[in-house]
Amino acid sequence: MLEDTIVAIATPLGEGSIGVIRMSGPKAIEIGYKVFCAKKNKNWFIKDNYKIIYGHVIDPQNNEILDEVLLSVMRGPHSFTAEDVVEISCHGGIVPLKRVLDLLLRMGARLAEPGEFSKRAFINGRLDLAQAESIIDIIKAKTDAGAKIAIGQLQGRLSEQVLTLQNEILGLMAKIEAIIDFPEDDIPEQTLDEMVLTCQRLINKIEKLLDHADSGKIYREGLKTVIVGKPNVGKSSLLNALLREQRAIVTDVPGTTRDVIEEVINIKGVPLKIIDTAGLRETQDLVEKLGVEKSRQLLGEADLILLLVDASTGLVKEDLNVINLIKDKRVLILINKIDITANLIDVNELKEYFYDSTILEISAQQEIGLDQLEQAIVDLVLAGKLAATENILVSNSRHKIALEKAHTHLKEAQRGMKTSIPIDLVSIDLKSSWEFLGDITGNNVSEDLIDRIFADFCIGK
Amino acid sequence: MLEDTIVAIATPLGEGSIGVIRMSGPKAIEIGYKVFCAKKNKNWFIKDNYKIIYGHVIDPQNNEILDEVLLSVMRGPHSFTAEDVVEISCHGGIVPLKRVLDLLLRMGARLAEPGEFSKRAFINGRLDLAQAESIIDIIKAKTDAGAKIAIGQLQGRLSEQVLTLQNEILGLMAKIEAIIDFPEDDIPEQTLDEMVLTCQRLINKIEKLLDHADSGKIYREGLKTVIVGKPNVGKSSLLNALLREQRAIVTDVPGTTRDVIEEVINIKGVPLKIIDTAGLRETQDLVEKLGVEKSRQLLGEADLILLLVDASTGLVKEDLNVINLIKDKRVLILINKIDITANLIDVNELKEYFYDSTILEISAQQEIGLDQLEQAIVDLVLAGKLAATENILVSNSRHKIALEKAHTHLKEAQRGMKTSIPIDLVSIDLKSSWEFLGDITGNNVSEDLIDRIFADFCIGK
Repeated sequence: MLEDTIVAIATPLGEGSIGVIRMSGPKAIEIGYKVFCAKKNKNWFIKDNYKIIYGHVIDPQNNEILDEVLLSVMRGPHSFTAEDVVEISCHGGIVPLKRVLDLLLRMGARLAEPGEFSKRAFINGRLDLAQAESIIDIIKAKTDAGAKIAIGQLQGRLSEQVLTLQNEILGLMAKIEAIIDFPEDDIPEQTLDEMVLTCQRLINKIEKLLDHADSGKIYREGLKTVIVGKPNVGKSSLLNALLREQRAIVTDVPGTTRDVIEEVINIKGVPLKIIDTAGLRETQDLVEKLGVEKSRQLLGEADLILLLVDASTGLVKEDLNVINLIKDKRVLILINKIDITANLIDVNELKEYFYDSTILEISAQQEIGLDQLEQAIVDLVLAGKLAATENILVSNSRHKIALEKAHTHLKEAQRGMKTSIPIDLVSIDLKSSWEFLGDITGNNVSEDLIDRIFADFCIGK
Repeated sequence: MLEDTIVAIATPLGEGSIGVIRMSGPKAIEIGYKVFCAKKNKNWFIKDNYKIIYGHVIDPQNNEILDEVLLSVMRGPHSFTAEDVVEISCHGGIVPLKRVLDLLLRMGARLAEPGEFSKRAFINGRLDLAQAESIIDIIKAKTDAGAKIAIGQLQGRLSEQVLTLQNEILGLMAKIEAIIDFPEDDIPEQTLDEMVLTCQRLINKIEKLLDHADSGKIYREGLKTVIVGKPNVGKSSLLNALLREQRAIVTDVPGTTRDVIEEVINIKGVPLKIIDTAGLRETQDLVEKLGVEKSRQLLGEADLILLLVDASTGLVKEDLNVINLIKDKRVLILINKIDITANLIDVNELKEYFYDSTILEISAQQEIGLDQLEQAIVDLVLAGKLAATENILVSNSRHKIALEKAHTHLKEAQRGMKTSIPIDLVSIDLKSSWEFLGDITGNNVSEDLIDRIFADFCIGK
C-alpha cells in the first residue's frame, strides 16, 4: 500500500486565496517534475529539500498552464508522512484546485483516503497513534482549551506517560520472570511487597488520568446541554444571551459565518453543545413539543441541564412537571427574571428535588448573573479538579476505555501478588495491562482498528 | 501604508487539514522570529529564502505551544507582494488558526483588508492591474474555460496587447509632436494617410478584443438563464436533467458540498446561472407566481431564455402568454415530451414569434436532445466566434468599458486626421485613448479606483 503515491486537496474547499494540494509517496517528486515548470530553480527535483519553488503547473499533454503556484518539496523521512512530500499551493478556488488535482491523478497519483496521510505518518513511525489522533482534535477544536489539550497530545505528553507506565509494568514482568527462573526458591516477602507497592503507584497514576477523562471528553466533544423550563420562563432569552458574546468572538475571525460553530457556545473554554437549539427556539415547551418519552430520551443524553424557573411566579404545576423529568440528572437551577420582582421561589422546596444542585438568580433579559452561571458550568465540568491547561487530559473515549482495562488488569495483578495465586498468572494480567496501554500509542494494534481510527479523519489529512 | 505588516488567514475557513496564515511587510520576518520556534534550522530568519522550516508557534508571553506548523519565508522583492512574506501552515481548524492569527496581531501585525496582498503586489509593481484582477477570477472561476481565461490574463496576455496598443498610440502622438514643432510646414499628405491607416489598424485590434468581450463576461460571470413555460411543461425536469450531470462532476471533488456552486450549471465550459432556481422549482408558473411586471423585469435581466413548449398539446393560450413576454429576447425553444407523442407543435407558428431562434426537440424526462441543447447554448455564446481557449478574452466589464472609451477616442482622432481639424486637437483624443487603455493595466489610475477594485477581493488575497 505504501508504494502508492497519494494526493488530495488539503485545505477546506471554498473560495480562499490559497488552496493546497498535498502529494505523498515514492513518486511524489517524479510526478511533481512532470507537471511543474519552475521559473528559475529548474533542478529542484534532484536534491532540493524543504524548499519552495515558484512556477507553473502545466499539463504536459497540451502545454496548457493550469495555475501559477508555489511548490514545496519535503523529502522523506523528514516530512509529515516520512515519505517524499510535494505540496502545491494554488489559487484557492474549486475549479483551479480540481484541475490540478485531476492532472496529478492522471500522472499516476491515487486519491488519498480520509486520514491516509496521518495513517502513513503513523505506519512509518513518525507519530504514535495518540499523536495522530490528536491532529483531528486540533482541527475540530471548538475552544482554546480543546485546542490546548489536543496540541499537548500531539506533543506526545499523553504518550510519554503511557510509555512510562508500560516500562514500569515491563519492569514488574521482568522481576516475575526472574522469580519463575528459580522456582525452587520462595519468593522473598520484601520483593512481593515492593511489587505490590509499585503496582499501587501505577494504579494511582492511571486513576489520576482517568479522573480527568470526563473533563477531557467534554473539552473535546462539548458538554451536551439542554435548557428546560415552563413556557415563557425565558429559555430563548437565556440562549440568546449566552450566544451573543459567543457570536462576537466568532465573527472576530474574518470571513467566519456564524453557522460554522452554530450550536457550540464557548463558556470559558468549555464548549457547550446546546441540543436541539433550533427546536428550543421554536417551541416554548420541550415536553409539549416532543412528548414525555422523547423528552426523557433527550434529557437522558444530556451532560448538563439548565433548569429555568420564574422568580415572579414561584414554583407552579408546570415547573413540577419539568422537575419530575430531570430530578436525577446533573442540573443547574436558574431563577430567572429577578430584575422584575423579588424572588417568589421557595429555595428550600427546590432543594428537596435537587439537594446538591447550584441555584443561581439571574436575568436572561438584563444579562444579570451570567458570569456566575458560566463559572458554575466550569466548576461543574472541572468538579474542583485541575484545569485543562495544567494537566495531561485524556480526551478520547478510546483512550479512556484502554486505560480502564489496563487499570482492571493491574488491580487483578496486584490482588494476585497479595494472595497465593501462582506468580505466572500475575504475569498474564500484567501483560494484558501492558497491551491495553499499547492500544493508546498504537504499538500493538490491529490493522482493523487503525483503519477505523483513520477513517474518521478528513480527506487530505 | 506599505510600512505596515499585514496578516490574514489565506485559506477558506472550515475544517481542513491545512490552514495557511499569510503575513507580508517589513516586520513579517521579525514577527515570525518572535513567535516561531524552529526545530532545527534556528537561524532561518537571518537569510533563509524560499525555505520551509518545521517548528512550533509559541506564545512568548507564557511559552504555550499554539500549533505545530511549517513556516515558509519568502523575501522581497521576489515574493507575491514583493515584500517580505512569511506563511505559516497550521492545522486547518478555526480555533488553531484564530489563535495563531491573534498572536500575530498582538505581536504587531495588522489584519489585512480584503485584497490587500494583491494590492501591494500591484503597488509594488509585481503585477499590473489586469493581472491582479485575474486572481479573483481564477479563484471564483466556475468552469475550466473561465479558469483558463483568468490564467491567461494573469500571465499578462491581455496586458501585453494593451501595452502594444498604447505604444502605437504613443508613436502617433510623437509624429504629431514633430509636425507641431514645424507649424510653418504643411503636413505632407502621405504622413496623414499613414497615420489614418495606423489608427484604423488600432481600431480594428480594439474591435476584435471587444468582439469577444461579451463571451468573456459570460465565461467570467455566467450566462444568466431563465427557464420558462406553461405549468407542467417540464421545467423542473429540464433543470434536474441539466443539474444531474453537473452534480456528478462537482461531487468528484472530495468533500465538495453541492451547495458550493448550487446555481451554476457547467455547459461545456459555459457557466449557466439559473436565475431564481429555487423559485422555479417551487412554482410551476413564473408569471402566476411573480406577476407580469416582476416577471418582465426578471426576464429583462436574463442573457438567455429557455422556452419550453409541450409536444403533446401543441401551442395553447398559456404558451402565447409566455411568448408575449419574451418574444424580443434571446430565446432557445425546446419542444419537450417528444418521447410521449408525435410533435403537435406548429413550428411555423413558433417562427412567427422567434424567426431566428433555434428550435430543438427534447425529452427532459428521458434526457433526449440534451446534447444538442448544450451545443446550441455554446453556439449562442460563442456566436460563431473563436472559443475561449484560443484567444485573449476580455472578461471584465471594467476592461470592456475602458476599451470602448479608448475606441471612441481613436475613432475621433482618426476623423480629425481626415478633416481639417487642428492637429493638436487630434493629439488630445489620442492621449485620452492612451489613458483609457492605461486604466486596464493600471499605469495611470486613481487611488480611489484601486481601492474599489481590491475591496471586491476576499480576505487573505
